[in-house]
Amino acid sequence: MSEQEAYLTARAKLIAEDRAQRLDSSLLQVASAAELRAEEIIRATKAAEDKAIWSVEHEGVTNTFAGMQFLSAKHLVIKSKLFQILTKMPKGGLLHAHLDAMVDVDFLLKLTVAQPAIHIRVPVALTPENIKSVLPEFRGLPANEFTTTSAQSLTASDYVPQTWVNYKRARETFSDELGGPEGFDAWITGTLTINPNEAYGTHNSVLKIWEKFASIFVVKRGLALFIPIAVDYIREFIRSSVEDGISYIETRIGFFSEYFVGADGQQNVPHREYVMIFERIVNEIKAELAAQGRGDEFQGARIIYSTTRAFSLEEIEWYFEDCIRLKQEFPHLIAGFDLVGNENTLHPLIYYLEPLLRFRKRVEELGLDLPFIFHAGETLGDGSEADCNLYDAVLLGTKRIGHGFSLVKHPKLVELVKEKGIAIERLTSSMPAHPLPILLNNGVSVALSSDDPAIFGNMGLSYDFFQVLVASEVNGLTTLKGLARQSVEYSTLTSAQKADALAAFERRWTAFVDSIVDGTI
Amino acid sequence: MSEQEAYLTARAKLIAEDRAQRLDSSLLQVASAAELRAEEIIRATKAAEDKAIWSVEHEGVTNTFAGMQFLSAKHLVIKSKLFQILTKMPKGGLLHAHLDAMVDVDFLLKLTVAQPAIHIRVPVALTPENIKSVLPEFRGLPANEFTTTSAQSLTASDYVPQTWVNYKRARETFSDELGGPEGFDAWITGTLTINPNEAYGTHNSVLKIWEKFASIFVVKRGLALFIPIAVDYIREFIRSSVEDGISYIETRIGFFSEYFVGADGQQNVPHREYVMIFERIVNEIKAELAAQGRGDEFQGARIIYSTTRAFSLEEIEWYFEDCIRLKQEFPHLIAGFDLVGNENTLHPLIYYLEPLLRFRKRVEELGLDLPFIFHAGETLGDGSEADCNLYDAVLLGTKRIGHGFSLVKHPKLVELVKEKGIAIERLTSSMPAHPLPILLNNGVSVALSSDDPAIFGNMGLSYDFFQVLVASEVNGLTTLKGLARQSVEYSTLTSAQKADALAAFERRWTAFVDSIVDGTI
Repeated sequence: MSEQEAYLTARAKLIAEDRAQRLDSSLLQVASAAELRAEEIIRATKAAEDKAIWSVEHEGVTNTFAGMQFLSAKHLVIKSKLFQILTKMPKGGLLHAHLDAMVDVDFLLKLTVAQPAIHIRVPVALTPENIKSVLPEFRGLPANEFTTTSAQSLTASDYVPQTWVNYKRARETFSDELGGPEGFDAWITGTLTINPNEAYGTHNSVLKIWEKFASIFVVKRGLALFIPIAVDYIREFIRSSVEDGISYIETRIGFFSEYFVGADGQQNVPHREYVMIFERIVNEIKAELAAQGRGDEFQGARIIYSTTRAFSLEEIEWYFEDCIRLKQEFPHLIAGFDLVGNENTLHPLIYYLEPLLRFRKRVEELGLDLPFIFHAGETLGDGSEADCNLYDAVLLGTKRIGHGFSLVKHPKLVELVKEKGIAIERLTSSMPAHPLPILLNNGVSVALSSDDPAIFGNMGLSYDFFQVLVASEVNGLTTLKGLARQSVEYSTLTSAQKADALAAFERRWTAFVDSIVDGTI
Repeated sequence: MSEQEAYLTARAKLIAEDRAQRLDSSLLQVASAAELRAEEIIRATKAAEDKAIWSVEHEGVTNTFAGMQFLSAKHLVIKSKLFQILTKMPKGGLLHAHLDAMVDVDFLLKLTVAQPAIHIRVPVALTPENIKSVLPEFRGLPANEFTTTSAQSLTASDYVPQTWVNYKRARETFSDELGGPEGFDAWITGTLTINPNEAYGTHNSVLKIWEKFASIFVVKRGLALFIPIAVDYIREFIRSSVEDGISYIETRIGFFSEYFVGADGQQNVPHREYVMIFERIVNEIKAELAAQGRGDEFQGARIIYSTTRAFSLEEIEWYFEDCIRLKQEFPHLIAGFDLVGNENTLHPLIYYLEPLLRFRKRVEELGLDLPFIFHAGETLGDGSEADCNLYDAVLLGTKRIGHGFSLVKHPKLVELVKEKGIAIERLTSSMPAHPLPILLNNGVSVALSSDDPAIFGNMGLSYDFFQVLVASEVNGLTTLKGLARQSVEYSTLTSAQKADALAAFERRWTAFVDSIVDGTI
């Protein structure tokens, strides 16, 4: 063997060793002929689009490249053949999804305008000068508080600040100067979404983007709390997820107050009723799909009980108890417990140590299967409180880690999450400088997740799988399969349920691969 | 022990384990009382400035935060007390520094205007419309080719494209419409530097910024090649580095053509003469400093012979031979061999495999201490050729890795660089999403480096150490000390030279720490 041959052999061995822990390494060894052929086709399509789409200039897009920041490139992604193929791919489970931000904003506004109880108010009459900074508030009101005076308009100079106006009327009476009803819709949409200019310009820092983020949830709260909207909203979320190839869901529901608002405008609907509505819709959709012979496409949905890191030690006690009560009544629906909100500014996990330890003990004593599934390490900080949340999430026995962006800094924690089988729930809107390749090459389990897609417009999981595929020359179709399988394997389903879900997944995967190979996709 | 106490003990142990491989862990155990006190003072100053400077809005700065992108924040950094302290800190060695981009542009232009042989030309007369896109070319001409016609101006409508104009005259005859001589300086400066708008806006992609980068080196080439400028340039580089606390330098010099241009305007000065000039200046400065009792402040400078990845297999042969000849003649000056240029578009290391193996063999046979010190993995790609350069750099026995931005993706390579004692030469202009914390926590050795400071304006290493300090709540003064020591330990100095350099460093460090503690800094 010449020196050069010896070198090339050593090189191939080194690369294989470096990639040995990847989830696709073992899958490739047992891949079927059809899978290998599909892998080739996908890689060829990717290479062709890298030239045709991602290496040329596009009007209105600064600096195009594969895996670029999602918000600037969505219109290019949608046109891609690769993306169209991925929309047909079975995705497995969606394990990190905040219910408040899972449905397309246009759809939500259609639901809203159809509810006569929904009212809107602003702190000051809207003008061209202030419309970009004024945020609306929504509420479902009781019938006796409905506003009937037609004089009220949010854009009228005589609008009395903080007066509730019927949503539909507010829309219809929106002044021409501000664009009429379409101007109203654009304004509301702007308060519920993040656009590229905000994401990469004006709000391009962790602090600023969280401010916008938080304002969206505050604005949305009045709609999300209103039960008649919630019913259609949950149905649309699950249906659209299934259409995108997602067959199982664990969604985080934010329980931030004791009651939801009912159709009668009274804030007196307890959490258990909301959970029962959720269950009813899940069962309806399962039945519908089964009746259509599409039973493999949906295994169900569960709830990760989430409350906020903004609560004081006293305030949060009620929610621990509430979560346990719900788990006892709906053991099959409540999947775990989490704390949400900006880790960089709100309380770290260690702040809640005493009640968390107490909660964990009670859960054990009661024999409940109610794990922590914590957000942690969603930060650019190094050694900051948000970064250190990772230590506590792991020590407190978290089942998975939400985001864990900064996990890769921590060699001991990387070792521990692998040892303990903790998966990372990752979103992947932009790939450069993203830690996903580090996680994959280190053999850390990952569940790709969309997080808050309504805010960014990346509905479903197709965009996430797309970004993972195009931004890497290592990742291929087999990598995506491995990720989809992991999202089932690291769910809170029982072993038997997982086996069923994986069997269903494999049946669909085979059909998917065949359609790539025979070109019918 | 209560459950909470037990938890907190386990937590402290976990954090210690996670940080056990850090270079500051062992240093903290042997720190002097003064060092510990200085560490406290620095952390307090940092915390105070994090509030006073980095958590408030500044006019003209979007989204201020500690460790933000350097170009937008330089004016804030300079005003910081912490930065002022760090300018006095002994920095150890500067191991990654491209000679072409080491001296402040204003200084370079002053050198240039004083050289009557330097001429400038453009492909078209400059106008307000084209000035932002037209690049100049410089050359030192022989006296018989000096332009003497006073009619010629780069901004005159009758300028004959590509006609050489004396630099000084070109400056003086620059039209008022384009700002006169100051407008000329601003134009030239713009072609030699990258501004925030380019870095974070128009050129914010790997491809675009490399285009600008490459254009700078092309423009600069005509000046850097001209020996009379080079003499003062090298002197200024070393002197300003010493003033910044740098006591040893390994600079990459780009040997891209066979000859430099002499004072007579003839391109006939061989590389050996350039190296001799370099040596003479180094010795002069050492002697000057020794005479002032400042011998500890400068241990010397060496050259990493660098040629370009743009060369074909045939073209590059001459440079391998040239490097060996120079090493044989100046064994104490030539520190290693490297290939430079955009890894994402030019040839990968594997392209040169055969000549590189042959070169390595010859070096061994000749008994020369001439290691590879390769640029590798300076990329956002995953599995791309640039990313895969890391495999080849390591397999070919590189002594250090230039940048290695994507190293952290590769568990096997992280293991190997530690095992083989390969340090990473890192620049650190912006800290969020920077892999430095991953390297430090994994015990990978790092030599902080400024790379091309003239292009960005971050002269010296103070800015780099500053960014490392402020963007992390783990890093402290001891971390910086560890980094400074590593830059000596991973240099190409002999063991005896390293011991001397480290002893000198420790003497200066003690004085530095004392001045922090007694407040005289």
